Amino acid sequence: MAKILETEMAETFAGKWLTFRPDLKVLDCTLRDGGLMNNHRFSDEIVAAVYNACSAGGIDYMEVGYKASNRLYSLDEFGSWKFCAEDDIRRVIVERDASVKLAVMADTERTDYQTDICPKEQSIISMIRIAAYIHQIPAAIDMIQDAHDKGYETTINLMAVSTVPDPELDEALELLAKSPVDIIYLVDSFGSLYSEQVRYLLQKYFHHAQAYGKKIGMHAHNNQELAFANTIDAIIMGATIVDGSMGGLGRGAGNCRTESLLSFLHNPKYKIRPVLQCVAEHIEPLRHDLLWGFDIPYMLTGVLNRHPRVAIEYNQTADRGNYVKFFNQIIETD
Amino acid sequence: MAKILETEMAETFAGKWLTFRPDLKVLDCTLRDGGLMNNHRFSDEIVAAVYNACSAGGIDYMEVGYKASNRLYSLDEFGSWKFCAEDDIRRVIVERDASVKLAVMADTERTDYQTDICPKEQSIISMIRIAAYIHQIPAAIDMIQDAHDKGYETTINLMAVSTVPDPELDEALELLAKSPVDIIYLVDSFGSLYSEQVRYLLQKYFHHAQAYGKKIGMHAHNNQELAFANTIDAIIMGATIVDGSMGGLGRGAGNCRTESLLSFLHNPKYKIRPVLQCVAEHIEPLRHDLLWGFDIPYMLTGVLNRHPRVAIEYNQTADRGNYVKFFNQIIETD
Repeated sequence: MAKILETEMAETFAGKWLTFRPDLKVLDCTLRDGGLMNNHRFSDEIVAAVYNACSAGGIDYMEVGYKASNRLYSLDEFGSWKFCAEDDIRRVIVERDASVKLAVMADTERTDYQTDICPKEQSIISMIRIAAYIHQIPAAIDMIQDAHDKGYETTINLMAVSTVPDPELDEALELLAKSPVDIIYLVDSFGSLYSEQVRYLLQKYFHHAQAYGKKIGMHAHNNQELAFANTIDAIIMGATIVDGSMGGLGRGAGNCRTESLLSFLHNPKYKIRPVLQCVAEHIEPLRHDLLWGFDIPYMLTGVLNRHPRVAIEYNQTADRGNYVKFFNQIIETD
Repeated sequence: MAKILETEMAETFAGKWLTFRPDLKVLDCTLRDGGLMNNHRFSDEIVAAVYNACSAGGIDYMEVGYKASNRLYSLDEFGSWKFCAEDDIRRVIVERDASVKLAVMADTERTDYQTDICPKEQSIISMIRIAAYIHQIPAAIDMIQDAHDKGYETTINLMAVSTVPDPELDEALELLAKSPVDIIYLVDSFGSLYSEQVRYLLQKYFHHAQAYGKKIGMHAHNNQELAFANTIDAIIMGATIVDGSMGGLGRGAGNCRTESLLSFLHNPKYKIRPVLQCVAEHIEPLRHDLLWGFDIPYMLTGVLNRHPRVAIEYNQTADRGNYVKFFNQIIETD
């Protein structure tokens, strides 16, 4: 809890919050991150509704789902948006809006990227987001190179960074910054990061990224009701792409809300009404079954810097709502 | 969206988040702010449960309710905790814990403070929190003087500050800093403030307060899911008392969660389990009827810097959930 000096503040917090940065992009990850709560079984109607809301809302990128290996994951167990076949996307997105670029996430070592990701000129997809854990950096760099060579925009989303020791993070960021990747994301997988930690990490990310002309993105989770605040911090520090999801739909506590982002960013191209309408008509009706959004078990996994898996499982038991029992359980598993 | 320079950050965001500040106090306002959602009709059982959780949780202050005039407000329409008679408090709080100080809020011009607030030595209450709008500063200062002379700790909670022009705010803060008040609160009544605005305002509050040795407090609302983040910002900037409520219970979108505060503050005196248990057993069961907590209409009043009243009313109609209609309605009332 460092105290900011008054002299530093005067310079830093001058009133500049009515402007907008035209270079700042919004990526809507509603279906990709939300798909983690329903095995990616979204109806065509919902996928189309989210796309149309992105289009009408002026959103820059829409992430449809994963590009998972169908050798590793069964088509019986998972819906189409785990695999994002070109034909499935084209079937649902009938009226294309070229201003909304499509993105998919490709998990390192869980994607047959050589075969399943076709050259960009044959694809409806514009951006491949490569997700990797710290031990997968070389494999992730191979995937970055492959996607880059095929003509895609690329991001690297280094997951679970809150568990990565500083020297390894520095080494990873240096390797990634030297790769052909376009954007390096700070990903708060566990929703564990407080503002000071976000700023500390972003300072590190910028240090490596800027030396190689890379951009910085922010993907936040709302375990501690800090997703929007942490995303604002990333914007203030110079991030140029930020993730939101409609109604906050995403794994566990969910993500920063797209509707909050649009209301905060004063770029006139962004329109909030189509997003509010999509949330009301298509997203909120899913909440009862999908059980995403702030809840104390998710808060506690965030506080304790754990994967939300245990909280998601607990919330599906009859003990849901017994917070002390959950807290005791996860403390005991140490 | 000012960009913080790297050189400034290195100094400011050094890793200091594992320590704690022994001077930092937590005030639980569950019943006072939450009472705005049920006309202060809490059962004795719930008041006792919140008190016992404060006691077991190591919380420094518990705000019980208002000290409202019973000439202005009917005992038929409002529950006991609108008035906080000494006898009512003593009836419910059977086992006193001297380490939990009791506070009440006294609204300027809505409190018969000369008669209804007895000398401190006859009272179970330790702190009078005087709430005032900008046009009531002289009347508020009379109340501060009265409470101070009677022996109470005092705070001034200047409401709706997001609507106050800068010159008036500076004048008010200077007058309040010169008064005998102990603590000046930044109150984000409408949940409208972003981090940069919080920092800008707190810089101003500290400027006036520090010249007269006053402390600074923070009371946040969660309309934009920024209550906890803004409270953290206030802590980083040097606030010495912060408000939380259990389960976030409070008007409209509610407040910063007490359980989040306790998990963030690393003072070993704070215990989270008793608070989690109280939230599970006594607070969450109220949610269905009281309808507090994040919801898009509250978010929109925050974004538009409006009193949450219109959103609270809207959420009690059959149109609840039709966010676009609500947005259009409040834009039309400009």
